[in-house]
Amino acid sequence: RNNLRKALNAIHEGFFLSNYKELHLFLVGVGNVGKSLLQQIQNQREVLMNDLRLKINLIGVANSRTMCIRPEGIEPAIYEEALKKGEPYDINQYMDKIFDLNVRNSVFIDCTGNEVIASSYGKLFEHYVSVVTANKIACSSEYSLYKSLKENAKEHGVRFMFETNVGAGLPVINTINDLIRSGDKILKIEAVVSGTLNFIFNVLSEDVPMSKAIRLAKEKGFSEPDPRLDLSGTDVVRKLIILARESGYPIEKEDVAIQTFLPKDCFEGSMDEFWNKVETLDASFEAERKKLAAQGKKWRFIAQLDNGKPSIGLQSVDSKHPAYDLEGSNNIIMFTTARYFEQPMVIKGYGAGAEVTAAGVFADIIRVANV
Amino acid sequence: RNNLRKALNAIHEGFFLSNYKELHLFLVGVGNVGKSLLQQIQNQREVLMNDLRLKINLIGVANSRTMCIRPEGIEPAIYEEALKKGEPYDINQYMDKIFDLNVRNSVFIDCTGNEVIASSYGKLFEHYVSVVTANKIACSSEYSLYKSLKENAKEHGVRFMFETNVGAGLPVINTINDLIRSGDKILKIEAVVSGTLNFIFNVLSEDVPMSKAIRLAKEKGFSEPDPRLDLSGTDVVRKLIILARESGYPIEKEDVAIQTFLPKDCFEGSMDEFWNKVETLDASFEAERKKLAAQGKKWRFIAQLDNGKPSIGLQSVDSKHPAYDLEGSNNIIMFTTARYFEQPMVIKGYGAGAEVTAAGVFADIIRVANV
Repeated sequence: RNNLRKALNAIHEGFFLSNYKELHLFLVGVGNVGKSLLQQIQNQREVLMNDLRLKINLIGVANSRTMCIRPEGIEPAIYEEALKKGEPYDINQYMDKIFDLNVRNSVFIDCTGNEVIASSYGKLFEHYVSVVTANKIACSSEYSLYKSLKENAKEHGVRFMFETNVGAGLPVINTINDLIRSGDKILKIEAVVSGTLNFIFNVLSEDVPMSKAIRLAKEKGFSEPDPRLDLSGTDVVRKLIILARESGYPIEKEDVAIQTFLPKDCFEGSMDEFWNKVETLDASFEAERKKLAAQGKKWRFIAQLDNGKPSIGLQSVDSKHPAYDLEGSNNIIMFTTARYFEQPMVIKGYGAGAEVTAAGVFADIIRVANV
Repeated sequence: RNNLRKALNAIHEGFFLSNYKELHLFLVGVGNVGKSLLQQIQNQREVLMNDLRLKINLIGVANSRTMCIRPEGIEPAIYEEALKKGEPYDINQYMDKIFDLNVRNSVFIDCTGNEVIASSYGKLFEHYVSVVTANKIACSSEYSLYKSLKENAKEHGVRFMFETNVGAGLPVINTINDLIRSGDKILKIEAVVSGTLNFIFNVLSEDVPMSKAIRLAKEKGFSEPDPRLDLSGTDVVRKLIILARESGYPIEKEDVAIQTFLPKDCFEGSMDEFWNKVETLDASFEAERKKLAAQGKKWRFIAQLDNGKPSIGLQSVDSKHPAYDLEGSNNIIMFTTARYFEQPMVIKGYGAGAEVTAAGVFADIIRVANV
């Protein structure tokens, strides 16, 4: 206790002397999101130093082939050059280098979708390294892993942040945290969290049958290269699991009731077989769509948590439903809570895209510094 | 630099040994919001200790008559008893006691609407005390005060939080911060931030003329005791100023173009005169309302920031406008930014009320601890 007070006094002095806070970043993943993030850091570094007295030091960068750690710092703008001069990528060696450096206020940033990386956050926490991740895997696999990671981070006084796991840059996870911590109870979540699926159901029309809508989503880069990964709802399940767990419900993947809108055999076989199968379904989708339209309704692929029960599936909503007017590939998340009871709290906007996701990651990073 | 590292090492050890973080709270204002906050703290203290390893100590409570500081802590549930045994209230003495105690991680919480208190945040920062405030005055008076307070807090490494100043518990200020810090530009804000006015325009109908709508708002406790404070748009101007400033526009009150919907003479004279005047306007409001309704439109009192130009006033919106369906006394805030460009980011929900405001204050407090 006495040590702590001494330390805090010293901190205040130290801070007052240096007059700024520092973060040391170790990034892995320089795909669209990672690249956007580096760009944003490059553009904002001076502003953050001037406005927030926050110094951002990029110390490490890695992709799946190469890694580079430079204690003196890497200019975000020339990260590619740094990577060229780097060493072959090895996640264990990358982490060992971070631990050897042993710089306080270190933040590991995961902009991959990699499972191995997701499984090593625990080791980072044990070395007092905070983790900011756009990677959904850690928080959406077994509950025990999610729980132990959160515990582990807390035990070591570091942060574990994953705001972008649901809704990209939209304030979703932080909002749930604020509600829960202040004692609110999340009674119901209704959400459209797949931009891809929302796009598909928005373009569906007399002229655009289901197969064409899916093709469009793929062409415009809204879907995964294999659109079945979106159509199966796998990504929506992951997001719902994270929403539910953050809301205090210890659910597992198996607890989610999944209603896909394509028959099971669509998800088996080659892509060619898939397109053939979907085309045979175009007519029946169109007949159903017409019927709904005549009733003033639209399809929305909704993830729901109702009294702790998670489910995903297609719902037909009328113009009174907040998701009815959900444009393009937008997301919407509605929270009904003990305090937001008669009218839910609603958050709406782009829920995907490199720039807004990178911005969400960046905001998480800055939050680690608590400025 | 070396001192800082030593301090940080000691901090980590200290944290690891004690294994929890602590906050010391000094509250002023135990009206509806303050009372609700104390209730929430009482209910959540154990949860926060168990789940977040955050120990919340209420050290001081004050209202406009009495103040009480107990270094050993005050049970939130029996704050009234503590106040009864307290001393006569004096803000300077209250603050001096806080400074004498000199406890690290001190947080001053302002749940008043008091101007004198708002003007003394600077002194708190200088003594390394963070401020969490539901009081809009400091951030909405002269820009120079707002700016100097933010600077002052940063200089001393403490937090200045006022999320509840706009939209109560809705994630508004934090969201703007996240956008701006990551390099986004706020191009336009459109917002309904007066629950009172939204209620009035929602109940307006053939059977409920303007004068009755205002009376209802007053009766239901949605308006100030003198409803003219709401009708004049004063509160909306304050909120818009804060939104604009946080968005990076250094505006003053005089910059806001204000279009009131009641003639100027309504705001002069006694309440009785006011009611008489409004009643003479009922017929013309109803005629106008009918015309709008025939066009499928509704009135909304909208605060707007367009390319740095702030304005407030009544707008008629059609069913395509996101505020058209805004129920009851709800708020809506829409951000059009460089990144959320074709579709704005939208946040909607209750924007007033003791419980949700207290929850927002509580979330701000917890954010100071950075857990």
